[in-house]
Amino acid sequence: MSRERQTIDRAAWAEPDAETLMPDAADGAAHDGQAMHALLSRLYPICRSLTGPGVRETLAILREYLPLEIHEVPTGTPVFDWTVPQEWRIRDAYIQDASGRRVVDFRRSNLHVINYSRPVRTRLRWADLEKRLHSLPEHPAWVPYRTSYYHDNWGFCLTHEERSRLAARGDEAEYDVVVDAELVDGALTYGEYYLPGESRDEVLFSCHICHPSLANDNLSGNAVAAWLARHLGRQPKRRYSYRFVFVPATIGALVWLNARRASLAQIKHGLVLTLLGTGERWTYKRSRRGSAEIDRTVAHLLQKSGHAHRLLEFEPFGYDERQYCSPGFDLPVGCLMRWLPGEYPEYHSSADNLELVRPETLADSLDFCRSVVDALEQNRTYRSLCPHGEPQLGRRGLYRAIGGEDGRADLERAMLWVLNLADGEHSLLDMAERTDLAFDVTVRAARLLVEHQLIEDCT
Amino acid sequence: MSRERQTIDRAAWAEPDAETLMPDAADGAAHDGQAMHALLSRLYPICRSLTGPGVRETLAILREYLPLEIHEVPTGTPVFDWTVPQEWRIRDAYIQDASGRRVVDFRRSNLHVINYSRPVRTRLRWADLEKRLHSLPEHPAWVPYRTSYYHDNWGFCLTHEERSRLAARGDEAEYDVVVDAELVDGALTYGEYYLPGESRDEVLFSCHICHPSLANDNLSGNAVAAWLARHLGRQPKRRYSYRFVFVPATIGALVWLNARRASLAQIKHGLVLTLLGTGERWTYKRSRRGSAEIDRTVAHLLQKSGHAHRLLEFEPFGYDERQYCSPGFDLPVGCLMRWLPGEYPEYHSSADNLELVRPETLADSLDFCRSVVDALEQNRTYRSLCPHGEPQLGRRGLYRAIGGEDGRADLERAMLWVLNLADGEHSLLDMAERTDLAFDVTVRAARLLVEHQLIEDCT
Amino acid sequence: MSRERQTIDRAAWAEPDAETLMPDAADGAAHDGQAMHALLSRLYPICRSLTGPGVRETLAILREYLPLEIHEVPTGTPVFDWTVPQEWRIRDAYIQDASGRRVVDFRRSNLHVINYSRPVRTRLRWADLEKRLHSLPEHPAWVPYRTSYYHDNWGFCLTHEERSRLAARGDEAEYDVVVDAELVDGALTYGEYYLPGESRDEVLFSCHICHPSLANDNLSGNAVAAWLARHLGRQPKRRYSYRFVFVPATIGALVWLNARRASLAQIKHGLVLTLLGTGERWTYKRSRRGSAEIDRTVAHLLQKSGHAHRLLEFEPFGYDERQYCSPGFDLPVGCLMRWLPGEYPEYHSSADNLELVRPETLADSLDFCRSVVDALEQNRTYRSLCPHGEPQLGRRGLYRAIGGEDGRADLERAMLWVLNLADGEHSLLDMAERTDLAFDVTVRAARLLVEHQLIEDCT
Repeated sequence: MSRERQTIDRAAWAEPDAETLMPDAADGAAHDGQAMHALLSRLYPICRSLTGPGVRETLAILREYLPLEIHEVPTGTPVFDWTVPQEWRIRDAYIQDASGRRVVDFRRSNLHVINYSRPVRTRLRWADLEKRLHSLPEHPAWVPYRTSYYHDNWGFCLTHEERSRLAARGDEAEYDVVVDAELVDGALTYGEYYLPGESRDEVLFSCHICHPSLANDNLSGNAVAAWLARHLGRQPKRRYSYRFVFVPATIGALVWLNARRASLAQIKHGLVLTLLGTGERWTYKRSRRGSAEIDRTVAHLLQKSGHAHRLLEFEPFGYDERQYCSPGFDLPVGCLMRWLPGEYPEYHSSADNLELVRPETLADSLDFCRSVVDALEQNRTYRSLCPHGEPQLGRRGLYRAIGGEDGRADLERAMLWVLNLADGEHSLLDMAERTDLAFDVTVRAARLLVEHQLIEDCT
Repeated sequence: MSRERQTIDRAAWAEPDAETLMPDAADGAAHDGQAMHALLSRLYPICRSLTGPGVRETLAILREYLPLEIHEVPTGTPVFDWTVPQEWRIRDAYIQDASGRRVVDFRRSNLHVINYSRPVRTRLRWADLEKRLHSLPEHPAWVPYRTSYYHDNWGFCLTHEERSRLAARGDEAEYDVVVDAELVDGALTYGEYYLPGESRDEVLFSCHICHPSLANDNLSGNAVAAWLARHLGRQPKRRYSYRFVFVPATIGALVWLNARRASLAQIKHGLVLTLLGTGERWTYKRSRRGSAEIDRTVAHLLQKSGHAHRLLEFEPFGYDERQYCSPGFDLPVGCLMRWLPGEYPEYHSSADNLELVRPETLADSLDFCRSVVDALEQNRTYRSLCPHGEPQLGRRGLYRAIGGEDGRADLERAMLWVLNLADGEHSLLDMAERTDLAFDVTVRAARLLVEHQLIEDCT
Repeated sequence: MSRERQTIDRAAWAEPDAETLMPDAADGAAHDGQAMHALLSRLYPICRSLTGPGVRETLAILREYLPLEIHEVPTGTPVFDWTVPQEWRIRDAYIQDASGRRVVDFRRSNLHVINYSRPVRTRLRWADLEKRLHSLPEHPAWVPYRTSYYHDNWGFCLTHEERSRLAARGDEAEYDVVVDAELVDGALTYGEYYLPGESRDEVLFSCHICHPSLANDNLSGNAVAAWLARHLGRQPKRRYSYRFVFVPATIGALVWLNARRASLAQIKHGLVLTLLGTGERWTYKRSRRGSAEIDRTVAHLLQKSGHAHRLLEFEPFGYDERQYCSPGFDLPVGCLMRWLPGEYPEYHSSADNLELVRPETLADSLDFCRSVVDALEQNRTYRSLCPHGEPQLGRRGLYRAIGGEDGRADLERAMLWVLNLADGEHSLLDMAERTDLAFDVTVRAARLLVEHQLIEDCT
């Protein structure tokens, strides 16, 4: 489709869910949910970390869905205050008892070894081994997820049930302990997908890809981001350009920020996507700016959605928004989640698995992300071409015929509001915030008024 | 009274209700209420519309009370997005049954015909006639008020009781239907009264004069506006100039705005007056600006009045404030009402009649409008002539003699507040809003302090 | 200690209560409380007034504790709108009945005579005398405190019990009435203590010294101010300079303002200290500016203190803050109290005595004043030296070693907040207000980050 065609076809974007494009939206959503869950299921077994083969394998699978650009940054590269670490390559890890049985076995779950453990091969008494073990007494059947990045350390995670059984064997029991891993110079790997739009102004979506077998945190974010990117890629035109980044947490985000340093000013809006696969209610954490357009957009849409939700102020803990919102960047990037990290019991444990994440929840998350993008695309500022008094809507067929009858449709009210606030100062989002109208109704009103040459876009 | 005399007589305005001017204020109010109701009773029977003889007759009666300037603007004159419509001249209208009885008769109530109905003379079966009828099932004894401006249409309004009786006669019953009206080129008529003051800055009062036999909506507004204008006309001096406009709704306000286009910047404050004849509590709808001085003044006075009241944000529906507050004008004009339109059951029906409107409510409305005008007149900004520390009020006789005794009169507190905030930045209204003082107490304090040369007016 | 030493010893100020300086803080506080109460006990019997020997004696005693500079300003000196009054020198005053018994006797309590009464020597019938008497029917055993400044007046205060006994003797009973006082040209006396700091920017503490035998109002303020000054004088270094003024109310504050007129711009923060000897909860009255740094500092510390407290808006009644906050000065000076004047029953009566004021309450008041000063000293603005992304706290030993474990210490959270907001725009107080962190935790975090060269002071 040529650029000219795109520019002429102005209404195309506005109806991304129009029946002509997607004959059965409910079926489409169900299909999307299943497909995202299928992607999750492929990614779930992989042992990811900040660096190494697991990240590469993950990005390779994502690339089957999206034309990702893959970047590698060598170990030792300085990145702001940090340095790209060595690659962690793990082949096997276990604790084996005197009878030769693997009582803890990396091959059963990659959570069993502390992520980034250094290589070990030794025999230890239980009393000494136990200091290296992590379990969850309050959830005795679950294996916790632990990391030891940037520290020379090793250890194992196991169920509390297993730990109790082993403890019962006494302090003197001996175990062979093996972490068959290596830390070697290599590279940090991340993926990026750029979708050009009419403007070079960008919307950023970021999600972390460094967690091993944890489904909600953050394979859910990766799947939703991938499907959102596919959706946007199918649009005949886009006002904004879009950039999707799939990065290891912290160091990956910093590496990406460093690479894009010269063009960060183009990022007008952004979201970190995470924890989108389970939980009824929504949580939005505002950007450091607090009332950036993305903050106001998500807040408005959640408020109008009827969904239970929370709007949290920014704080410099959490996911990669803490990097994007550091004072030297201060990008307008919030974090969209359902549960908060730590708030659902399965967080950072083997119970954050493929059963926890629901296809319909993924589909609902995708749907909301699409509505956010729609709103950003549509949020324009207009100027009335008829600012002195009200224009005569009736003669244009835009108004009820018989005065005094009951009811005044939302759209009619929206037209009057848009006309009243179309002074070149108020965006449609400003209007929706000032009134009790839903944003999409202001969009429809504005479109009608543009058609009738009563307002003009002056964004 | 010469201009010089007016300027010297500085205190005259401040006590509009002083006993020397009006020996018995309660009697005066009662008299005003009766007189306003008498004016209503004269205006009530007239069949007004956007244009035509009814409007002219109405203005002629008002002119007996006020030296109104009458303006006529020819049919076909373009006014912003609108065109002055033809005059509607109605002589008679009825529905007559086969026996020759007028079952619906314009001569009994001008509400029976849809306002601006085009001429009709035909015979119709009930089944066809009924599509042209409007009634109120929930108030079967009332006739609704309906209009059909700017549409080629006609119809009748009747009680639901009568409609039921007619329906019982069956679909085949035939009726002679007559609207003996004409739509002809003529003019739109409106009235204007201008009262010059010391400053060319203006206060605008506007009310609509296009409703036929409806007493509260808006003969009440017309009567109160007329009495307020008479009151202001009797003042020996006025800080502001005042302009009262009596206009057909929408097109009349637009015609007036067009005529005054070059001097609208002189309008510093304004109110649309409507629905002032019934209802205990007050409703104020803010101007589009939201915190214009008129908005803050009315809000403060209502809050201090002890009356039940509501303060509503601006919205572009309602009365002519929607024209004054359109983005091209954005005038500081709010709308003062008691009930909202549609909120009282009699709204836009034959029950909005002379019994619904109460003389004492009209008098109370007038009284509040006078207090608003007083406050606008008195709201000045002062600068302390003694800003370093407190001035010694005691030696000027402005302070209690014995320190430590109980009580501190409001006036004493007001003097200290006015002295403290008399920095050339705070108006008396600012002071009243910041403190718990009533505006009139700040006025009295400021007057005392001016007399003692402790502050000076720097408005 | 030399200036150089002070500058190098940067941490000294930050830990005024560190164990090395005060081995047992609780014992220290108890000692302070007792010592302040002992000072009160010395000052309590003195008959103070706006001027005269009582003020001089009071300042002489304070000078035993602080190197006060004593200033005298002659009677008749014009001060803004005021004039320094004559000195009131009282030797004796009584009401003596026909039997020669002193039924009211200044020698038993200086409250018995209206402060600043002119000399009188006469014989009066009870009926005439009673007009000159003040008592408290609701507290019949207490003598009220009354003044008659700037008026030619005299009178007595007595218990309502005594008054009733005398009234029972009948209207015709005669009494010898003597006020053996003189009003003579002399001077107004006040004390000032200036403590230089690194900056010439000043913090002002002011308290009134004109009340006779009233312990809470305001010997409590004087004692706490004196001890706070001694505490500050012992500090090896101070960021701010400090000025403590001990002045007669109103005229004394004005005299001081007049004397310092040229350098008032150096006053960056200030507090009037009063009513600090009784009452559980705190009251802070904001400066006229409303959100000056002193206002925000006291508000934050009270909110974090866990103490019951009230934050009141400024009003131009009360203590000398009304002078400091008059529009010509508008200094950032609030008023720190426990009870408000008039709120505790003993206010302005003989029951405001040495029993009412508690040593532990004085100690607690001193402690809070010290925390305010600490906060002002520490409230600096920083700029991150590592603003692009988060710095790697882990490799500096500033961060938990094992990711994913429970809990995140307040200090760790504070470090991340300080780093995030260290943009040269946010002070530590801004940070504490924006977050849920206590101010002192932000101070500790900032100090750690400065040590690790992650932020720099850009105040």
